[in-house]
Amino acid sequence: MLASIRRPTFEELNLSTGKRARLYDMMYGHGPGNGTLMLLPIDQGLEHGPIDFFDNPDALDTDWVLRLAVEGNFSGIAYHIGLAEKYHKEYAGRVPLVLKVNGKTNVPPDDNSFSPLTSSVEDAVRLGASAVGYTVYVGSPAQDRDIQQANGVRRACEKYGMPLIVWSYPRGSAVKAKGGQDSLYAVDYAARVACEIGADIVKLNVPHSETAPEASPKPYNTTTMSEIDGLRKVVKSAGRTLVLVSGGSKLSNDDTVHKARIAMEAGCVGLIFGRNMWQRTWDDATAMAGRMHDLMKEFGQ
Amino acid sequence: MLASIRRPTFEELNLSTGKRARLYDMMYGHGPGNGTLMLLPIDQGLEHGPIDFFDNPDALDTDWVLRLAVEGNFSGIAYHIGLAEKYHKEYAGRVPLVLKVNGKTNVPPDDNSFSPLTSSVEDAVRLGASAVGYTVYVGSPAQDRDIQQANGVRRACEKYGMPLIVWSYPRGSAVKAKGGQDSLYAVDYAARVACEIGADIVKLNVPHSETAPEASPKPYNTTTMSEIDGLRKVVKSAGRTLVLVSGGSKLSNDDTVHKARIAMEAGCVGLIFGRNMWQRTWDDATAMAGRMHDLMKEFGQ
Amino acid sequence: MLASIRRPTFEELNLSTGKRARLYDMMYGHGPGNGTLMLLPIDQGLEHGPIDFFDNPDALDTDWVLRLAVEGNFSGIAYHIGLAEKYHKEYAGRVPLVLKVNGKTNVPPDDNSFSPLTSSVEDAVRLGASAVGYTVYVGSPAQDRDIQQANGVRRACEKYGMPLIVWSYPRGSAVKAKGGQDSLYAVDYAARVACEIGADIVKLNVPHSETAPEASPKPYNTTTMSEIDGLRKVVKSAGRTLVLVSGGSKLSNDDTVHKARIAMEAGCVGLIFGRNMWQRTWDDATAMAGRMHDLMKEFGQ
Amino acid sequence: MLASIRRPTFEELNLSTGKRARLYDMMYGHGPGNGTLMLLPIDQGLEHGPIDFFDNPDALDTDWVLRLAVEGNFSGIAYHIGLAEKYHKEYAGRVPLVLKVNGKTNVPPDDNSFSPLTSSVEDAVRLGASAVGYTVYVGSPAQDRDIQQANGVRRACEKYGMPLIVWSYPRGSAVKAKGGQDSLYAVDYAARVACEIGADIVKLNVPHSETAPEASPKPYNTTTMSEIDGLRKVVKSAGRTLVLVSGGSKLSNDDTVHKARIAMEAGCVGLIFGRNMWQRTWDDATAMAGRMHDLMKEFGQ
Amino acid sequence: MLASIRRPTFEELNLSTGKRARLYDMMYGHGPGNGTLMLLPIDQGLEHGPIDFFDNPDALDTDWVLRLAVEGNFSGIAYHIGLAEKYHKEYAGRVPLVLKVNGKTNVPPDDNSFSPLTSSVEDAVRLGASAVGYTVYVGSPAQDRDIQQANGVRRACEKYGMPLIVWSYPRGSAVKAKGGQDSLYAVDYAARVACEIGADIVKLNVPHSETAPEASPKPYNTTTMSEIDGLRKVVKSAGRTLVLVSGGSKLSNDDTVHKARIAMEAGCVGLIFGRNMWQRTWDDATAMAGRMHDLMKEFGQ
Repeated sequence: MLASIRRPTFEELNLSTGKRARLYDMMYGHGPGNGTLMLLPIDQGLEHGPIDFFDNPDALDTDWVLRLAVEGNFSGIAYHIGLAEKYHKEYAGRVPLVLKVNGKTNVPPDDNSFSPLTSSVEDAVRLGASAVGYTVYVGSPAQDRDIQQANGVRRACEKYGMPLIVWSYPRGSAVKAKGGQDSLYAVDYAARVACEIGADIVKLNVPHSETAPEASPKPYNTTTMSEIDGLRKVVKSAGRTLVLVSGGSKLSNDDTVHKARIAMEAGCVGLIFGRNMWQRTWDDATAMAGRMHDLMKEFGQ
Repeated sequence: MLASIRRPTFEELNLSTGKRARLYDMMYGHGPGNGTLMLLPIDQGLEHGPIDFFDNPDALDTDWVLRLAVEGNFSGIAYHIGLAEKYHKEYAGRVPLVLKVNGKTNVPPDDNSFSPLTSSVEDAVRLGASAVGYTVYVGSPAQDRDIQQANGVRRACEKYGMPLIVWSYPRGSAVKAKGGQDSLYAVDYAARVACEIGADIVKLNVPHSETAPEASPKPYNTTTMSEIDGLRKVVKSAGRTLVLVSGGSKLSNDDTVHKARIAMEAGCVGLIFGRNMWQRTWDDATAMAGRMHDLMKEFGQ
Repeated sequence: MLASIRRPTFEELNLSTGKRARLYDMMYGHGPGNGTLMLLPIDQGLEHGPIDFFDNPDALDTDWVLRLAVEGNFSGIAYHIGLAEKYHKEYAGRVPLVLKVNGKTNVPPDDNSFSPLTSSVEDAVRLGASAVGYTVYVGSPAQDRDIQQANGVRRACEKYGMPLIVWSYPRGSAVKAKGGQDSLYAVDYAARVACEIGADIVKLNVPHSETAPEASPKPYNTTTMSEIDGLRKVVKSAGRTLVLVSGGSKLSNDDTVHKARIAMEAGCVGLIFGRNMWQRTWDDATAMAGRMHDLMKEFGQ
Repeated sequence: MLASIRRPTFEELNLSTGKRARLYDMMYGHGPGNGTLMLLPIDQGLEHGPIDFFDNPDALDTDWVLRLAVEGNFSGIAYHIGLAEKYHKEYAGRVPLVLKVNGKTNVPPDDNSFSPLTSSVEDAVRLGASAVGYTVYVGSPAQDRDIQQANGVRRACEKYGMPLIVWSYPRGSAVKAKGGQDSLYAVDYAARVACEIGADIVKLNVPHSETAPEASPKPYNTTTMSEIDGLRKVVKSAGRTLVLVSGGSKLSNDDTVHKARIAMEAGCVGLIFGRNMWQRTWDDATAMAGRMHDLMKEFGQ
Repeated sequence: MLASIRRPTFEELNLSTGKRARLYDMMYGHGPGNGTLMLLPIDQGLEHGPIDFFDNPDALDTDWVLRLAVEGNFSGIAYHIGLAEKYHKEYAGRVPLVLKVNGKTNVPPDDNSFSPLTSSVEDAVRLGASAVGYTVYVGSPAQDRDIQQANGVRRACEKYGMPLIVWSYPRGSAVKAKGGQDSLYAVDYAARVACEIGADIVKLNVPHSETAPEASPKPYNTTTMSEIDGLRKVVKSAGRTLVLVSGGSKLSNDDTVHKARIAMEAGCVGLIFGRNMWQRTWDDATAMAGRMHDLMKEFGQ
């Protein structure tokens, strides 16, 4: 029933000139180059710690990840200010920069999640970035501060013509009590929040739409749908905010490709797979990037 | 006994030139055009999530809602910055924009309600808005921050000549303990607070004045009156702040019209019905807008 | 023994030129015009809600209260920005404006009282006000924020030459534990705090000095004095900060006059009676204002 | 063993030109005039309330205290903005002003002590002050805000060339748990903190060094020394920050003089005795000031 | 297996011109002068109190410590604004200044550690500093404020070309619950956080990598390695952020030298030993500095 969902066209986004120029460069000037996006995130060192690099210690060296971004022909790489300042110079112009402007460690409990600023839109402008990334913890009791902080980032993005990508993550005790962060209820809400607060692009996890947690509010507590229909639902809720699907923790090759395919078929603009790329060896990672490129060819627009 | 209440005239509002120009455009240049207001709010995607669009999935597409605003000849549409940036361009000039400048999700409990800024009066000016909307949670333990934040918005409205519409909602544990958010005590207080802090227009719910909660302070705990007299009471408490009545959750056609009629007879300036409009199908929604227009003709001033 | 207390002369106040001009206008250009003050406060709609207008519904109409201020020849009217913007225009020049710049509802419990800003000294300047009013909750656990906020208001008053009237109210759990907000200990401390933080005028309640709460610190727990001596004590503690006595809830005619007389005999500069004025009918209120004028004639300076 | 401690010379302080000029005026142009300091503090009305004036009601009149400052030939008087604005004008030039820029009431419990700003360094400049006073509550759980606020004051002092006197007071639950606010551990730490955060002068209480609280950290829990050696210890910890000794609550004449003598012998730059001055009658107070002057003659530098 | 770790070259740091000039001066113009660093920290007076000076009371005199910095030919001295203002003047140009811009006492419990600013990057510029030091408490529940505050310091460092040295310390209840502040998990995370948030240099404690706390997350709970391999691991996690090893509490001469050697062999850029220097007598301290210099000769780059 949701089969007719398509993603918004570039024109429909009603972007300002600066946002348009920068986003066009990522969508048509790099990566697949056909209006889709393949982003490589490497902010896990702050979010999870070096723990994520045990599987492939090469990735501890950010330069290795940047070579992968270039070799794999990604649309952009997303990281924090520290890595951007120290590693991006040699790759400037070769791979677009998405400066992740807020982050935190996962050491303390996350009942009251909030992600403080690590840099600014002005830093992104100075570094020639093509977009900024901002994490919103939808439903967190700290949403007061979060939405206000997001507003500041959005305003600066508007001022400087910088595209805003929102990592829209349901989090906190109330989310847990209503079906969990991967429930259709939670992800669907997260998609809409990103749109309402002015995200140009939203990064979402694939909702677990095949089950309906009893604790979710009506009618989510009785609504089930296939994985792809769940994605279509959230794509529709995101409206004219383009959707990127997160990779999450490492999957098998086939599962990774499957996830990418249903994302694109559901109307997403692209992928933001990190651990599913750089937790692979060089050869496996570049091969996987190739398979993604092949897939993306079908979804140009 | 309260039958003599009438709403303030446009002159009595003592508006600055800029506020006057913008409000005149909504009250006399669009919608009924006779000094009444019919606003269409679509901020529920942030406040409640996509859950409100299950009844009529068409309304998930903001463009559909905007077409309704034009076709139904509304005085204005009220939404957040994300929707305004992405959808309003094609409708600029055709339907006035009320930029809702604060909001939150309803995921966490609301004992300590506070609605953070999602945009600014400056954004409203830039987008050519005719007014801004701001939610105050009257009686919330977070009123410290709320009143201060409202003060900043009010000051900017004064500076830029932007009319200020306050969504004045009693909320929080203390409100519950004193008879609830729909009690006459609570709504009456909310009406006055909006006036005292400088709202040009206040959006209120119809108080449940036919019952008097024992927990309300004297003499509210023994004061009952008809629905329309309850509304007249709060209209009087709002003084020279014009009153809009909220639609709330969806009603039958007749109940919707009845609510609109008693609102206007009680001295309100107009209606701000959202779910009662866009949770209907296109044909039903435009028909309902037509009935509202017919009604409004009786209340020109 | 305290009979020799007299209030400071206008010269002794060491006011800046701007403060002097504005205060002179209230003290010698309006009202009794002999150096005393009769202020009419109407901020109760925010502080208590419309509940205070049940006794005399006419007072819900701020215009009625302003007519009373003119007819009763008051030295000034004190209210919040919303009323000032909407009602004061027609009365500008005829009755001086005291803009109350902070306030709150009384819905939540007041153990940790704090009164956020509803407007600013700059608003007061723009509106041609003769003074601003600021509430300090002396002894509240929120005094950190309160004193700092008061400091900002004081500084702006200094900058713009705007007289500062402090509503100095003991509040919060610790005050309750030390004898209560009306104890001599509490009011005496409040008088001094206003002086120390730079109030030009302080509004105080008459202390209940005829009893000495056991819970008050030594020697207050054993110190009793007559009502007038209690007032003399706090007038002395206020030093060169002039004292206004609050009216509080409505009293009989004779009790109202008695309260006014002992205030003036104790060295106060005047009265700030609200409910004792506008909870009376028009005829009673204007008659009472006349009796106050007669009384004030004895206390010119 | 600590007999060799001497206080830093004026040259060793490495003061900026503005700080040097202002401090020189207090140390060599007023009071004893030989490089020592005799300050008269009158901030107790805010810190303790009018309760401190029961012993000598004359002191409730700040003008009386100023006459004492002149007659007793003090190096300066320290008070808050309210008193400074209202009383200092007639004494400007005759007695240097130390503007106390933060303060609080003692009504709420002090487990989490914090002293908010009541005025600013800019106010001090405008009033021609010779220094500002700032209270730090060393060890309070609120040290986060306190140190940051102190940093703002220090920076402004640096900008305007205004000497900074820190009232360095150990306070809060953790201090109580480690031996109390008068323990050598606590006062010694307080002395060092003042130096580290940039105080030019620090006001300290005499540590109770003759006993070693078991609860103090090693080796303080076993370290005892005479009163004068305790003072020498803290003077040494203060480094190039000059030390003033507090008077505290009223002592007998001989005890007051004794306290002053050991302070000076221990290497302090002077005294800041308030209640020990103005809780005395005029004759006793001026006589005591004379005895202090006699003592100070021995300690010129 | 980690034997191949080497530290980044000066070129690889991609420093701005100002940072480059200032860091070059410390690394090649002072101290060993071969690209290594020997810093002398003396911020313990604020962090621990005068308690640290019981072993060698001479060090209470900051001038003594500065003489040691010169005589021992250190690359720089790190302290707070108070000491810098009062003591650095005579040594300006002779020993580079690292201004420590945040700090706190250790009196209150540290479950929720946060280190407020005591000075600013602007102060560092004014004083001719070669770098600033900033403490981050990794994993503290107060990380919200901490990361944001660090962001402000980083931005100012970028603006003024000031190198940023981060004291990266795991702290707080959640760290304790996951294996403690010295666990490989905690120190490894701390190393990476410093890099991600933009530190040019990070100060770390040597991790206790020879044991694997059960409470640490997988695979840290089963990962053990030698002390030097633990250091190599964290050096690798720090990426292009140079690593300094803390001295911690006083060790024997041989242990001190051993610690220094494994630090350098593991790829650190140098040492920041405080108590291990100034808790020694003059002769022992200068001798130890000499031994460090001998060691450093092997690690020029």
